[in-house]
Amino acid sequence: MIQQETIVALATPSGAGAIAIVRLSGLKAIEIAAEMFQSVSGKDLKQQKTHTVHLGNIQDGSRAIDQVLATIFKNPYSYTGEDVVEFSCHGSSYIQQQIIQFALNKGCRMAEAGEFTLRAFLNGKMDLSQAEAVADLIASDNAATHQIAMQQMRGGFSDEIQVLRQELLNFASLIELELDFSEEDVEFANRDDFQELVSRITTVLKRLIDSFATGSVLKQGIPVAIVGEPNVGKSTLLNALLNEERAIVSDIAGTTRDSIEDELSIGGIGFRFIDTAGIRETTDTIEGLGIQKTFEKMQKAQVVLYLLNSLKFAEEKQTISELVQLRDRFPQKPFVVVCNKMDMLNDEQKDYLRTSLASIPESDIMEISAKQKIGLEELKNKLLEYVNTGALRNNETIVTNSRHYDSLLNALEEMIRVQEGIDMGLSGDLLAIDIRQALYHFGEITGEITNDELLGNIFSQFCIGK
Amino acid sequence: MIQQETIVALATPSGAGAIAIVRLSGLKAIEIAAEMFQSVSGKDLKQQKTHTVHLGNIQDGSRAIDQVLATIFKNPYSYTGEDVVEFSCHGSSYIQQQIIQFALNKGCRMAEAGEFTLRAFLNGKMDLSQAEAVADLIASDNAATHQIAMQQMRGGFSDEIQVLRQELLNFASLIELELDFSEEDVEFANRDDFQELVSRITTVLKRLIDSFATGSVLKQGIPVAIVGEPNVGKSTLLNALLNEERAIVSDIAGTTRDSIEDELSIGGIGFRFIDTAGIRETTDTIEGLGIQKTFEKMQKAQVVLYLLNSLKFAEEKQTISELVQLRDRFPQKPFVVVCNKMDMLNDEQKDYLRTSLASIPESDIMEISAKQKIGLEELKNKLLEYVNTGALRNNETIVTNSRHYDSLLNALEEMIRVQEGIDMGLSGDLLAIDIRQALYHFGEITGEITNDELLGNIFSQFCIGK
Repeated sequence: MIQQETIVALATPSGAGAIAIVRLSGLKAIEIAAEMFQSVSGKDLKQQKTHTVHLGNIQDGSRAIDQVLATIFKNPYSYTGEDVVEFSCHGSSYIQQQIIQFALNKGCRMAEAGEFTLRAFLNGKMDLSQAEAVADLIASDNAATHQIAMQQMRGGFSDEIQVLRQELLNFASLIELELDFSEEDVEFANRDDFQELVSRITTVLKRLIDSFATGSVLKQGIPVAIVGEPNVGKSTLLNALLNEERAIVSDIAGTTRDSIEDELSIGGIGFRFIDTAGIRETTDTIEGLGIQKTFEKMQKAQVVLYLLNSLKFAEEKQTISELVQLRDRFPQKPFVVVCNKMDMLNDEQKDYLRTSLASIPESDIMEISAKQKIGLEELKNKLLEYVNTGALRNNETIVTNSRHYDSLLNALEEMIRVQEGIDMGLSGDLLAIDIRQALYHFGEITGEITNDELLGNIFSQFCIGK
Repeated sequence: MIQQETIVALATPSGAGAIAIVRLSGLKAIEIAAEMFQSVSGKDLKQQKTHTVHLGNIQDGSRAIDQVLATIFKNPYSYTGEDVVEFSCHGSSYIQQQIIQFALNKGCRMAEAGEFTLRAFLNGKMDLSQAEAVADLIASDNAATHQIAMQQMRGGFSDEIQVLRQELLNFASLIELELDFSEEDVEFANRDDFQELVSRITTVLKRLIDSFATGSVLKQGIPVAIVGEPNVGKSTLLNALLNEERAIVSDIAGTTRDSIEDELSIGGIGFRFIDTAGIRETTDTIEGLGIQKTFEKMQKAQVVLYLLNSLKFAEEKQTISELVQLRDRFPQKPFVVVCNKMDMLNDEQKDYLRTSLASIPESDIMEISAKQKIGLEELKNKLLEYVNTGALRNNETIVTNSRHYDSLLNALEEMIRVQEGIDMGLSGDLLAIDIRQALYHFGEITGEITNDELLGNIFSQFCIGK
């Protein structure tokens, strides 16, 4: 299964840093690397053992490109399953380019996006869902997405699918065997056992399908709409939440992630805050365009935070009616009233505020001061209450990939058909057709069933070098 | 010399990529790494040989952080000269942070900027000028700066200094020995040989000092002023030059460097194009403020390109007088008249243009079309003519570091004093004082003579992780 062409790419993030890695993989990886590299101790790279590291120079004739470490991985004991050489060089963009160019001159070709992982899949180092998890793992930016991707990469999901698939496959074989002996009216496949298996598979499929609601939201970040008048302190609140989280990693210089203003991780879960237009922009007419957009955004959110200027409220410049109107528009959606600027109220004003909000359940009211950083911890815990983290805590498989979701839905449909067939007393040959269809969809997930177009779609989403 | 504390840092550029490397160095590097890492084959990391690579998991209790490769380097066979472990992990920012945080929890501390290289210096793995070359190498973004940094990192400069220093040291010792036998009037140090040595050292010092003019310009990019009327096509020209160079590396995706609009590499040499205000902005009064700024920028440039709208000139809307005035202001500075938009001229207009420019030496006139990409190759070659690449071609040492330059100047001053001493027939004990001073300045370059403040200054310029 080893690919003919030897590929090369930068494997570390682009830009300058202390170290960069240029990776070669393929039939001639070691041979080409040996031509590019002169060991300081005169060793021949081709004679070295797998998983060993060698100091030397990348040398193009008389021109020294860099002093590097060369690490050898021999097939099948490498990421791709092929011969692999990694050059660990000084992290200058110029040097990275020069080494890659040199490898191209020596007969490598530039790797395509995800090609190292594609080869790992083609060489049986991982199945398709594990390969997909590699991309998810690299993209993970909080504890939840990291945990789900790790579990999937380590084969948790595949194993679960594979076990069911194998059992189903055994039954399919037995039923198909009956066909050969149809005149003798034997039953190799025990129908009670079969019924039990079908029920079990159906239950697992439903659980996995249900997990996608959580999974896809976790992957993209829990959508939270912040609703409120202009200047009520929305960006102060977001910054306060963001800075607290940032402080945790502040001493890990060089690893601070690029911040996207409205995305932040709370307790290891990603939240995505949806900007809403100030609700007063259209002069109190609740039918105005601004309100319409606010509704659209509330619709998309899993939780709505209604941010209230407590002082304005206490000074009777605002009433509860608007708040109630908004809340009642989506009666099923969690709606939290966040009273901001509480530090500016005297006790009398606080009493007035609390009395005014008496119709709101107490558990749905948070009293904070974004500026003074009061009540933020409670607000975060409140947000986490709305996330279904049960499956996460129990380390159950959570489906995050819409391709897997589609295959699971299709498999479930076939299993329901099989169940109907059993109920109707369908003959083995007819049952076998639906079982084969279900097996097909299981195979799509793990990659037993695949095609070039599908692989192309999946791996083109990867970065080059992976 | 091994430092007590074990340090950790991200060694690859920050951000997401296929692979990232987290590096540990110090007395407990292997011990700490072994606590963080579980080999897939059950091997104990502490029992493994130097320069070997091991597959396993970073495991914090029951929590799997990542599947990684761990590479072991045992002292003194590592970059720092200490025990070093490199974890090659999936390149997610989150995972990078988690592994570093885990190492910190296990007793590492965060490495300071340049601390790995500082330790390499303190442990005698490289001298100071080589350590400084590491930073230059990482910053290098074209063939010239790369070559100079490589030569310096590989010890070319240090060797040259070291040989002279050793010879001088031998003489100093002999002369000082004479002092012990001063009553016997012996001469251990042959004065003719000494004279020869002093001359030789002085010559080398002068060459190195002279090279700094080239070196510092190469390091920062050759400054080129583009002068011309507004809308004469300056940015079209710069883009055309830039795109040509980019095309060379266009297929090396993932390695394209961040472009700074006005910096580009031509034939491996960095050029820095200096923006000048359009010279007509102040309505022809050559004393205007705009012109004053143009003069300042021409002053700073090594070459001036006068960009001419050939069509406008051919249509007699512009005359040669302004061009000549500018050129004559800096008679010593290379001044190239670049006739742009030549593709829009008919033969008659071309003749007129050439006749009008008859007073300019033909070799200083370039006819191009930035838009049609005509004449760009010739223009680039013209620019390269003004760069002194002799030393570069001959792979001579070129000084680029102002600290080295200062030490060389000081050493030269002392050597001149020694020469004067010889000429005046000064006694050995007096000569010895100046020789010792010269030796001191040589030692500053290679780091035999150093102090904490100097080291702090040098290494704080490094990135963290190097």
